[in-house]
Amino acid sequence: MSETIKIYRDLAGANDHWAGETRSLLSRHGLTLLNLIGAPGSGKTALLERTAARLQPRVRLGVLEGDIETTRDAERLAALRVPVSQLLTGGACHLEARLVHAALRDLPLENLDLVVVENVGNLVCPAEFDIGEAAKVAVLSVTEGEDKPLKYPLLFREAGAVVITKTDLLPYIPATLEACQAAVRQINSGAPIFPVSVVRGDGLDDWILWLEGHARRSTRHT
Amino acid sequence: MSETIKIYRDLAGANDHWAGETRSLLSRHGLTLLNLIGAPGSGKTALLERTAARLQPRVRLGVLEGDIETTRDAERLAALRVPVSQLLTGGACHLEARLVHAALRDLPLENLDLVVVENVGNLVCPAEFDIGEAAKVAVLSVTEGEDKPLKYPLLFREAGAVVITKTDLLPYIPATLEACQAAVRQINSGAPIFPVSVVRGDGLDDWILWLEGHARRSTRHT
Repeated sequence: MSETIKIYRDLAGANDHWAGETRSLLSRHGLTLLNLIGAPGSGKTALLERTAARLQPRVRLGVLEGDIETTRDAERLAALRVPVSQLLTGGACHLEARLVHAALRDLPLENLDLVVVENVGNLVCPAEFDIGEAAKVAVLSVTEGEDKPLKYPLLFREAGAVVITKTDLLPYIPATLEACQAAVRQINSGAPIFPVSVVRGDGLDDWILWLEGHARRSTRHT
Repeated sequence: MSETIKIYRDLAGANDHWAGETRSLLSRHGLTLLNLIGAPGSGKTALLERTAARLQPRVRLGVLEGDIETTRDAERLAALRVPVSQLLTGGACHLEARLVHAALRDLPLENLDLVVVENVGNLVCPAEFDIGEAAKVAVLSVTEGEDKPLKYPLLFREAGAVVITKTDLLPYIPATLEACQAAVRQINSGAPIFPVSVVRGDGLDDWILWLEGHARRSTRHT
């Protein structure tokens, strides 16, 4: 077996450095940052579209869209007049704090209360990287099946909130909402769980209230 | 920014070494190995359950189940009397060739024609690692939305076949089968696409024929 020796920087250390810089920046602006993480197609962007429409103008939302390729998600949010940037990882499976920090600085922070970062669609790697967020929010669609929190426990353990999406499809699939909630509870006893249907608008009130509470907590003290 | 210098082995080189060892082993036994990759909850295990029931006894199937935690998927296949092992990555987001090789050696290779490795649920990282497979098979559920091949192009570019699952849910969601197929074709002009509904049994015949063809191609020449 051939082996080569490479030198590389301590990426975890550098990541924590930039996460810290981001927390300072957020604190100066009285801003809350949330890190939205879920599988590809779990409905993260659709949730953000609906959330933006409900929050504004009381809570001024900014969005950073993380993807490997394409600017589709940022375009969807920009159409709603939300300040948004697209972060392209160029193949990498998660967002790193340095990229988030650079993109955050280019948002109109003075005019925002809350920034949501939609991470790359992936239940594994994004959970391992702090990007300076106040909380990670896990997104699980009922169509993925109720065992996902048990099979991908790190994200669900670390999550400050869990949004269970696509509840309108429950009549057509084997998974039940109760089983999804119970699986989340096996991994995380405290985080609020928000079952929602974005297409129907079901369950969004509690989610919006939770977001408003988070945004209010960091409001600028000037 | 603090920086430390670390030394690490060329993991890609080591991975290719073990992928090569696996190909030699497979060749000696006239065996075909397929690498099944898709998002969490895309229906990989359900597809394998139904596939096992359809292939046997003509094609003797073995399965390696890759997960971060739990042995749920292996238990589901073992219940169908399929030789199966569970590979737990302990947090890692993909299977590496060395682990697959070790597990493969413990399967009853003399009694098998085809081994399917179900990779960790993840559209990104598993596509980057050769595990000695004859082909990668991408699994995309219609509930994930039709833009996923464009947003996660590496897997769909490398795939030797694409299975589009959960077609029974098409009446209840915005995505159409035509849009899903067109997105795959933008990235991959040649791979066969198999739309299936595992719960209804729709579309499985072509997928089974394709698998049988692959298994036959490698049949032992003794």
